[in-house]
Amino acid sequence: MTLAPHTIDLNADLGEGFGHWRMGDDAAMLDIVTSANVACGFHAGDPDIMATTFARAKEKGVAVGAHVAFPDLAGFGRRALPMNAREIERAVAYQLGAAQALASLSGHRVTHVKAHGALANIAERDAVVADAIARAVRGVDRSLTLLAIALSEQTRAGARAGLRVIHEIFADRAYMDDGRLQPRSQDGAVIEDIERACARVRDMLANGGLRTVSGRLLPTPVDSICVHGDAPLAVEMARRLRGSLESDGWALRAFAGT
Amino acid sequence: MTLAPHTIDLNADLGEGFGHWRMGDDAAMLDIVTSANVACGFHAGDPDIMATTFARAKEKGVAVGAHVAFPDLAGFGRRALPMNAREIERAVAYQLGAAQALASLSGHRVTHVKAHGALANIAERDAVVADAIARAVRGVDRSLTLLAIALSEQTRAGARAGLRVIHEIFADRAYMDDGRLQPRSQDGAVIEDIERACARVRDMLANGGLRTVSGRLLPTPVDSICVHGDAPLAVEMARRLRGSLESDGWALRAFAGT
Amino acid sequence: MTLAPHTIDLNADLGEGFGHWRMGDDAAMLDIVTSANVACGFHAGDPDIMATTFARAKEKGVAVGAHVAFPDLAGFGRRALPMNAREIERAVAYQLGAAQALASLSGHRVTHVKAHGALANIAERDAVVADAIARAVRGVDRSLTLLAIALSEQTRAGARAGLRVIHEIFADRAYMDDGRLQPRSQDGAVIEDIERACARVRDMLANGGLRTVSGRLLPTPVDSICVHGDAPLAVEMARRLRGSLESDGWALRAFAGT
Amino acid sequence: MTLAPHTIDLNADLGEGFGHWRMGDDAAMLDIVTSANVACGFHAGDPDIMATTFARAKEKGVAVGAHVAFPDLAGFGRRALPMNAREIERAVAYQLGAAQALASLSGHRVTHVKAHGALANIAERDAVVADAIARAVRGVDRSLTLLAIALSEQTRAGARAGLRVIHEIFADRAYMDDGRLQPRSQDGAVIEDIERACARVRDMLANGGLRTVSGRLLPTPVDSICVHGDAPLAVEMARRLRGSLESDGWALRAFAGT
Repeated sequence: MTLAPHTIDLNADLGEGFGHWRMGDDAAMLDIVTSANVACGFHAGDPDIMATTFARAKEKGVAVGAHVAFPDLAGFGRRALPMNAREIERAVAYQLGAAQALASLSGHRVTHVKAHGALANIAERDAVVADAIARAVRGVDRSLTLLAIALSEQTRAGARAGLRVIHEIFADRAYMDDGRLQPRSQDGAVIEDIERACARVRDMLANGGLRTVSGRLLPTPVDSICVHGDAPLAVEMARRLRGSLESDGWALRAFAGT
Repeated sequence: MTLAPHTIDLNADLGEGFGHWRMGDDAAMLDIVTSANVACGFHAGDPDIMATTFARAKEKGVAVGAHVAFPDLAGFGRRALPMNAREIERAVAYQLGAAQALASLSGHRVTHVKAHGALANIAERDAVVADAIARAVRGVDRSLTLLAIALSEQTRAGARAGLRVIHEIFADRAYMDDGRLQPRSQDGAVIEDIERACARVRDMLANGGLRTVSGRLLPTPVDSICVHGDAPLAVEMARRLRGSLESDGWALRAFAGT
Repeated sequence: MTLAPHTIDLNADLGEGFGHWRMGDDAAMLDIVTSANVACGFHAGDPDIMATTFARAKEKGVAVGAHVAFPDLAGFGRRALPMNAREIERAVAYQLGAAQALASLSGHRVTHVKAHGALANIAERDAVVADAIARAVRGVDRSLTLLAIALSEQTRAGARAGLRVIHEIFADRAYMDDGRLQPRSQDGAVIEDIERACARVRDMLANGGLRTVSGRLLPTPVDSICVHGDAPLAVEMARRLRGSLESDGWALRAFAGT
Repeated sequence: MTLAPHTIDLNADLGEGFGHWRMGDDAAMLDIVTSANVACGFHAGDPDIMATTFARAKEKGVAVGAHVAFPDLAGFGRRALPMNAREIERAVAYQLGAAQALASLSGHRVTHVKAHGALANIAERDAVVADAIARAVRGVDRSLTLLAIALSEQTRAGARAGLRVIHEIFADRAYMDDGRLQPRSQDGAVIEDIERACARVRDMLANGGLRTVSGRLLPTPVDSICVHGDAPLAVEMARRLRGSLESDGWALRAFAGT
């Protein structure tokens, strides 16, 4: 589904520390984004970090989601663990429930779910895994929204499960002609020039689709833009992107309500 | 609160394996008890074991609760970890939410919460910790029931938090005159004679209180009897105790509904 | 290399509990085998179980080795984790060093290394992984012996690294014509008949090679026989196999000394 | 024991990341210190971080030790876990062996052991725990040096075990009249003024003892100075302290050789 005209969401991954370790500048990002994907203890995060992140997001009026992942603190959820669809479904439900409870304890409410890292990469192309994630979300709470990469298997799986689906694009990543993200290992995969990233987003929003490296437009709803906060430059890009969107008349608003 | 006359609950700890390891005879116990306290992944259990346990309990009509503990797989939750009340509150909420989600995925519903091991031992006497647990339960879902050791701080904390409280006694453990369980390290602390355990329970139910080692009766509501299933003898004791209660005309029924 | 004529080793996996969980009948197996592969905390085992297992093995005159695995308690080391050769090399060294230290503390001495579960399965066919394991062993202590599946890449990698290599066969598993173990999912893969298992071992020892399902003999040194102890029947098979070997005049002796 | 006149060691804690998380500026510290205490995977560190840290220390000619701790990644080893002396002894041996193996794989050699966090705090005053640590070190390799807080139980336990003991002082922490570190919760416990920290160290080295907050001198050998690297200011303090010592004619040298 698409949001009302001229309304767009900015989402980022937060709460990615563990114990005494920290990652990213959560405080800065909470002043920029409208939705936060909060780590649930499997790739990062712990009950204290989760509770604190939910409470701060509530204060700032930022919507929160469960950022579900493979159980892999050592690999930050970026390794594809050999788990079958049933195991993935249960691992997603576990994390989602934990996040709901801690959000509730913090006076907030989880309104969306997003897959992280290797789980997201697999679910982008693998309908079986995408369905497992969608089943977990529906089984726990069918009123939740699935935040999915535009044109991915996840968008279709969410629809099959009867879930509300939000389609996201990346401000700083190049798309190939099949709609997939260009692998980070290739030149040009990550767009570091802030002006260029802002121009790309403007183009994709105006034209309603992904712009690929060859210049093609792949039509898709675009409801949310994913930005990063784990580097000083990344925070600056997110801030500038928000300013650019506001200048263009876009209203920044969480897709799923706060 | 007390249940209707002649209704009593039998509860046991289930789902206490981890990965490829197993503990106790869950299948046998599900044919005996009316309520199961299911490990939530912190002292035992994992998403697969939890889902399977919830599904089997549903099939057998056994009510399920979240068996919350210190995060201590290596110590099976029997070590008192140095965590403050805030950290305990959040750890309990995390586990409770995870259990709710997996129960939901399995077609069942968590209706109670019980503290496990060292966390239960501390909460028996420490009002600050007992309040932290009660706050977590109330913060997540105030319709849940707290299953607490009779005459413990947990029963008072549950009342302060406005939660429904169920008072449990142990079939096979001796009570001291202050109402505490006699430490396992002392002679006579564990009652291994099945006939004697059944007679004790019959006495305590009939007289409405804990019977201590010196013969005193400490009045308390008695809503549930805790039995164990981690040894062949324990399963036999549970089975005989159930038979004994039924012979006496007690209706065995989960306190919190299924 | 091969041992002196009429000398054979029996090895089994021990110390596979974790915390309060146990697996297998270690006490029974220590009276049967001549070498024990001890879990190092990555797929099973912890410092206390390791120390206890090393001490008991010392008492019984059983040689001990480090049973190295992927870091995967949740999957018991049976899942192929996505780790590269460098990461595997370091993970093996870590476990090996830990085992050496605890053996030393217990008055014993690690004399061999064996890969467990998914790591062993991969190293059976993948020279890069087999070399990583061999490099780790050589880097830590080049006097250690590598216990490897007969005709596997591990035997060649051990030779390349200049390590002493011991070739093992399985008493209760069928071999395919390429020398690989028949997958457990296929009929006949596991030999449950004790008489037949003993006869197979006698045949392979007498003829100096693996006997495949089609009756072919694949020549290989045979220095050790792997037996299992995680089921009552398995212990009985190990005991009978030992008796059968002794009747045939084989001297049971640890390949690597105690 | 004391080192040769005018020779002093500077030690710091390194390798305190985990997986994708990092802590402190290891590269900067390796250009300043003469000895590095490397986390062993229990409170921080993993096989890859350990191997990398050992290799870099080797390049820089910095001696390395095993920084042993309670098994507590979630608490960074700063929580006193309820473990008995036997369990602590085994946990220390496990970590020490793992560190030796990875140092060996990296072409370096562990020459000392230091307790971290809560384990160090307890061993400072508790002879039973101090003895457990010393027993573990002696049981694994009696040629290793124990790096201990000056005037602590650890220095005595090391002597009892026949280990070489190195006495360390802190540049930036105030001492109470009983020789203990002033708790961080009290005003003045941490000395942030670099000039003052350098002056204190100069005073304690010149006079051969700890200078307490009331001005008393508690005589003790002083062989090493502990500096921190987990804050930009801390790195600067370490660098200035090294310069100050060199100006005074001290030769900076690892106590235990590289």
